[in-house]
Amino acid sequence: MTAPQPASDLIRFADILADAARSVIAGYFRKPFEVIEKADESPVTVADREAEAAIRALIEEHYPDHGIYGEEFENVRLDSRYVWVLDPIDGTRAFVTGLPIFGTLIALADNGAPVLGVLDQPILKERWVGATGVGTTYNGTPVSTRDCGGLDRASLYSTTPDLYDTPAREAAFGALYNSVKERRYGGDCYSTGLVASGFIDLHVECGLKPFDYMALAPIIEAAGGIATTWSGEPLSLDSGDTFIGAASRSVHEETVALLASAE
Amino acid sequence: MTAPQPASDLIRFADILADAARSVIAGYFRKPFEVIEKADESPVTVADREAEAAIRALIEEHYPDHGIYGEEFENVRLDSRYVWVLDPIDGTRAFVTGLPIFGTLIALADNGAPVLGVLDQPILKERWVGATGVGTTYNGTPVSTRDCGGLDRASLYSTTPDLYDTPAREAAFGALYNSVKERRYGGDCYSTGLVASGFIDLHVECGLKPFDYMALAPIIEAAGGIATTWSGEPLSLDSGDTFIGAASRSVHEETVALLASAE
Repeated sequence: MTAPQPASDLIRFADILADAARSVIAGYFRKPFEVIEKADESPVTVADREAEAAIRALIEEHYPDHGIYGEEFENVRLDSRYVWVLDPIDGTRAFVTGLPIFGTLIALADNGAPVLGVLDQPILKERWVGATGVGTTYNGTPVSTRDCGGLDRASLYSTTPDLYDTPAREAAFGALYNSVKERRYGGDCYSTGLVASGFIDLHVECGLKPFDYMALAPIIEAAGGIATTWSGEPLSLDSGDTFIGAASRSVHEETVALLASAE
Repeated sequence: MTAPQPASDLIRFADILADAARSVIAGYFRKPFEVIEKADESPVTVADREAEAAIRALIEEHYPDHGIYGEEFENVRLDSRYVWVLDPIDGTRAFVTGLPIFGTLIALADNGAPVLGVLDQPILKERWVGATGVGTTYNGTPVSTRDCGGLDRASLYSTTPDLYDTPAREAAFGALYNSVKERRYGGDCYSTGLVASGFIDLHVECGLKPFDYMALAPIIEAAGGIATTWSGEPLSLDSGDTFIGAASRSVHEETVALLASAE
């Protein structure tokens, strides 16, 4: 958890990558497009592939020795110190149904630990950037998490109950759901932006892939929160499929206590 | 169901009401504000009350003989031919957690039947206006529902599983949830905008009040869809707490077949 601070040129470069994805994706939103069903039945769009291709081309041009771990194309150079982890459209279901709260996720891993994360909403033109040891910004302005005082006063977001795929996970999440003050489904990665900006206290998911959670960790942590797996372990490329993004230490501890056994 | 077409001056006036609410609400979004807990634990904000007060003042000034049925203040002149039905912030949970997909709902009932509906998103500056016999517009441009071909190809939105408050309703909605191609929680009234614009096929809710559903009916129907209760009855001020907004006749019929018994 003591990963080095990312260099400022890498933070600036992440912004350039997000700009490239934004212009591709905005051109396809609410427009007719080809939809291909993947094996897991999540819809994926031409926009997704074109945006990732645009990001990958910039990485290959400017940092050809960095690795790339992406949803749409094969992974390259994963043994590099730096690996970019890409999900051009997190929340494809929101995207294809015209709901502008999906997001572009770009993470940078330094020896496997996420040290830089970008969450960009291309339609609303909202961008959170979190860099370990530096801070988290929302459209360039520093933001920080809030401290609601404890789980019973917390607002929880999670994308859908359908992701809790075992009886143990369903029960553990159910206990959490009933322990908070407010809860809401729907949101995908956008929920992490709301935690970082101090509007909600807790973002919990499972069934995630590394490109779904790697960018979220620095955004939460550099804003003052805590991001881990359900059992409280650091997030990394091989940390599993669970995610807790908590605004404060007390909310994080109470959440781990309820979810850890179902990791 | 053969309610008269609303006069064009009333359609223009509805836009003026939505403008007034928009400017009040936008000023409070993502700002610190007083939150008062209501008995049902739904958060309600100063913005909600101020926006409704602004709308009511305009109605009293321009149409003092019209009735008003609103969430925040007492109802007046409900025996009038025309009654305005108001919910300044539908989706207060989204509002207080910084998620810009809540909406301002303004309906006009003509002898009890909704003939004009406005759904305004004050932050994204998106507005759907539906008028019986006239059509539905999105930011001034005509929109229409799509025909996906049947329930097994439909995309369904509903706000939260927590609203299905009896075992019968939970079972009926569960059957619907498992019958569609795509489903997503979260959305509140915004889901009806997505149906009207042809991005999704079905918006289902229960536990609603008249000010939650009255505006939705003309938006769906004037766009080519069908809006009823779960048992397929027309929506009115006393039609109950259930809502189906379907993009096509076949989706509506299949939905009523699954939900009617749990009405």
